[in-house]
Order: sequence, then C-alpha cells, then structure tokens
Amino acid sequence: MAVVGLGLIGGSVALRLGRDHEVTGWDADPATRELAAAAGLTVAAGPEDAATGADVTVLATPPAALDALLPALAGTDCPVLTDVGSVKAPVLAAARAAGVGSRFVGGHPMAGTERTGFAAADPALLDGAAWVLCVEDDTDLTAWLRVAELVTGAGCHVVPCPAADHDDAQARISGLPHLLALALAVTGGAGGPLAGALAAGSYRDGTRVAGSRPELVAALCDGNAAALSRVLDGTLAWLDEARAVLRAEAGVYPLAAAGHAARRAWAEPAPAAAVALDGRGPDLRADLRELGAAGGAVHAVHADGTLHCRRPAH
Amino acid sequence: MAVVGLGLIGGSVALRLGRDHEVTGWDADPATRELAAAAGLTVAAGPEDAATGADVTVLATPPAALDALLPALAGTDCPVLTDVGSVKAPVLAAARAAGVGSRFVGGHPMAGTERTGFAAADPALLDGAAWVLCVEDDTDLTAWLRVAELVTGAGCHVVPCPAADHDDAQARISGLPHLLALALAVTGGAGGPLAGALAAGSYRDGTRVAGSRPELVAALCDGNAAALSRVLDGTLAWLDEARAVLRAEAGVYPLAAAGHAARRAWAEPAPAAAVALDGRGPDLRADLRELGAAGGAVHAVHADGTLHCRRPAH
Repeated sequence: MAVVGLGLIGGSVALRLGRDHEVTGWDADPATRELAAAAGLTVAAGPEDAATGADVTVLATPPAALDALLPALAGTDCPVLTDVGSVKAPVLAAARAAGVGSRFVGGHPMAGTERTGFAAADPALLDGAAWVLCVEDDTDLTAWLRVAELVTGAGCHVVPCPAADHDDAQARISGLPHLLALALAVTGGAGGPLAGALAAGSYRDGTRVAGSRPELVAALCDGNAAALSRVLDGTLAWLDEARAVLRAEAGVYPLAAAGHAARRAWAEPAPAAAVALDGRGPDLRADLRELGAAGGAVHAVHADGTLHCRRPAH
Repeated sequence: MAVVGLGLIGGSVALRLGRDHEVTGWDADPATRELAAAAGLTVAAGPEDAATGADVTVLATPPAALDALLPALAGTDCPVLTDVGSVKAPVLAAARAAGVGSRFVGGHPMAGTERTGFAAADPALLDGAAWVLCVEDDTDLTAWLRVAELVTGAGCHVVPCPAADHDDAQARISGLPHLLALALAVTGGAGGPLAGALAAGSYRDGTRVAGSRPELVAALCDGNAAALSRVLDGTLAWLDEARAVLRAEAGVYPLAAAGHAARRAWAEPAPAAAVALDGRGPDLRADLRELGAAGGAVHAVHADGTLHCRRPAH
C-alpha cells in the first residue's frame, strides 16, 4: 500500500493500514517525511516511487496537488488509485483527464478534527467511520472491491454512491450547516450586545460551527461550490416562504411540523438489518448504488466475494 | 404579590417569590389551582381577587388571555402589573389599550424547559436567569424599580430595554435559530437516506432545535412575526450573497471570516465590570436603556436607591 500526502487524514490512514499491511508513504514537506519516518513509516523517494509496486495508492494531498499528481501516477504500475478528499466530482474529472478514470476510486472518510498535520494523525480517528467510495459508470469494480476490502479491514464501513450524489449530500449536511451558522452569527451580531446578552442555547448550538477556522470553512464551501449553490436554492426558497407566511400572519405551524418531521426521521432512523450482496454478481454496480441511496453501507468484504452490508429496514 | 397563570413559568415564579413574600395565585384551570394549593400556594377566587391588595401582579397566562385580563385588572388597586411573555410589543399595546400603560412593566425571564404546566414548575428554573424588564417612554419608573427589586431579589438579573428592542433581539437569537434549524432539517431530509447516513456533528447541532415541539416553535415565531420577518430580510440577503459568491467561484472566505468574528465576539465577550446607577437620578430611563443596549444588567436594587449593575468593560 502507498499513501501520498501524510497530513491529518493521510497520516492516520498510513498508520492504520500499517497495522495489517506494508505501507510506503510520501509527503511534499520534508519535515512531515521526517516525522513519518520517526513514527516508523517507510518513506519513499517520491510519489511515483511510493506508488510503484503498490496494490493500492491512497492520495491524501491537498486537492490542488492532484491535478499534477494524477498524470504522474498514471505512468506507474499501481492498479488502484483512491483519494480522501471531501468533494468528489472535480477529482473524478481530473482522474479521467489524466487517463486513470477506470482505476480511480473516489473516496471520502467522514472523519476529521480541527487539528491538521501528521503530528495530529491518529489511527483511532478512523474507528467506525463512514467512508464513501464512489461508484461511477466507468469504475473498475475489481478496483472498487479492493479499496472496499482495505477500508472495511481498517474498521470503517463503506457508503457507495456516485460522485455527484456524494457532493449533493455533502453540500446538504456539511456546507449548508456551516453557511447557516455563519448567517446566524452575523444576524445575531447585528443585534448588538443586547441580543448577545439574551442569547442562549438555540443561538449557541446554531452558531457553533461558525467558530471553526474560517479558512477551513471557506475551503469546504468553495470546494463544493456548484452543489452548495444548488442546494441553497431550496433552502432560500423555504426561508422565503417562511418569511411570506410570517408577513401574512398565516401561521408557520405547517412549516415547523415539516421541519420537525425531517429532523425526527434523521435522528430516529429505521433500525438497520444485515443483508448480503454478491460481489461477483452481474448487477453489482446498481446494487451498490441502491444500497448507498437507501442509507446502507458495506461492512465487510469476504474472501468468497460476499459483501456483508447493513441497511435500514423498511 | 399575586401571580395569575400558574403554568411552568408562573408556577416557578410563584414558588420562588413565595420564599420571601406572601403570594396569592390563580389559574383558569381548576386542576392547576388544586395542584398549586397542594403545593402550599394561597389560591384566590379569581384574577381580580388575586390582584386586589397585591403590591405587584405577575401575569403569566398564555398571551391570548391578556387581552381580556388587562382590562379586568385595570379596575383593581394593584399599582404594578408585569408579565412574563416572550414577545413584548403586543402586550405593551394591549396594556395601553386597557388604560394601564404606565403601571405596566413588560417582562421576559429568559428561562424555560421543554416541559409545561405547574407540575413542571421549579423555582430553581429562575436561578441566575436574565430577566428583561421593558423601559418605555411612559413606563412609571417607581413601578419599574419595584419589579426590578422583586426580580433581582429572586436571584435574576434585569436587562432593561424598550419592548421593540427586545422583540428584535428575540427574533435574532431565538426565532431565527429555530427557522434556520427547520430549513436545514428540511434541506437535509431532501437529500434522502444517503445524506442522512453521512450527516454528523455540524448537521446534528444545526438541526437540534428543529426537534422541539412544532406547536411551541410555531407559537414562538408567529408571536413575534413582524420582528422575525424583518430580521429574516438581513439573513436572506446574506445567504443570497453567499450563493452569488459560490456561483461566481469568487471565494467565500470574507463571509466566513465575518461570521467567525461575530461568533467569537459573542462567545468571548469583554469581561463585565461593576457599575452603579442612581435609581433616583434624573436620567434613569436613558441610563437603563444604555445599560441594556451595552449588554449590561441590573443585579441588585439597594434600599438607598442605588442600582448595582454589571456591564461589559470597553
């Protein structure tokens, strides 16, 4: 296995995979390479060197580095490339442009902290995490299954879906909460010290993620700008309607009830049931997408080709 | 003292005031009157009976009951009427219409739980709470100081401001967080089970208050509809701008930095310093409004007329 980019996520992945696999790492930063070597990782001479001979190469660099890295790795013999970025459509386009579309599997482990860098890397960060692995029309399913085996073996469960669906979901459950928290913080702040003195639990919770570092929040939103602006259309339409109802004194109860029901459906999901998928079946691509769309995940890839999954029962 | 309306807040106030004062209570519901009597409260024969002879009458009924109650109490000898509702402009208008504008002091203790009714009443609910007391141009300052003495004596601190400023602040820090939480829950829900499966901390915190009972959320928003729809203008303009920036791929960092700064200014306020106000001074009305607008509060009313206050240091 190879891991290129040894920051918080790449470092955590390298350390976690290192428990069960031979892992070679590399990072553009010499100080990071020194830290990783001191932690016992084998450090390669360059990214191509790390990938050459590896079964799977995990790309964990900043997104901007991938445009140069993917073509460089296209010339190596590594049969499977996967990444860990939080936006999936742009990197898929970059992989296709570099001619590695079929051996590329877009990935996104839903894990992180406010800290950054190899010094903060911790294999426990990944324990029990959801890890999106993208299933496109041109994804090589053998490559996909190899990454799924690696990820489930590291204690994560795999959520399969197309890149576009991931980015839409990510906009709804990560970009949007950050934007709404910022909007609330700004609107509350415009009320001056009086509003601040009266603010309590609902304002505190609603603005919490506005306390995250603004450069991280901006990267999160800008990186997924297209999906996030589309999702905002729906949110703005809903808030516009709420304002019109308030102005007309028509009663917001129906809107409140709908929001309450949506929150409850999320907070109290149907119990999950174990299901098996045939990893060698003819409809695997469709089966995986359907599993992910239903809120299910792959929890283990067995040697006989069976995928052990869990999905909400109907 | 009299307390009319013995639900969660009225019951808690009656029990708390009962430690230091002779309190007579009344509630429109016979079962509530029985509960209150069993808890040791003196229960009057009706609201006028409760108010007659009382120094101060606290109105803690549902807002809709006040339109009939205020004219009924206008004929009693009670010199000071105050309420505990979460919206202050409509009740002020009702008090003026009932001819009790000058002896009425709008109030709002910033305390509550999800529970309702006298059975949930608890004097500890008020411990250390901020309690808005409105200062209008026609508020009788002797009446105001009498209520402030009562409230600070019950362990609360008094935030003074005009009703309109209270309602604006309340829209920003309570109505708006609830609407944004509902909008986020609905937008997240529209992403289906896939979005739900990927949602984590920022979505959970951002939607938390959408889990409150929708009839309470609707009452909160509808009761303050005018101020809330005005406040929404600013929030929608901010979100519109964010969407335009995302569409133009112009970078949301400046917006994120402004929201972060607003959150931080609230979460890390300037330390408060003790200040004294002359409760018999010629500029008391202006002094009190300035104190509240600056994020300060009255913490004690001394027998010599001095108001012991705390306000953020500059």
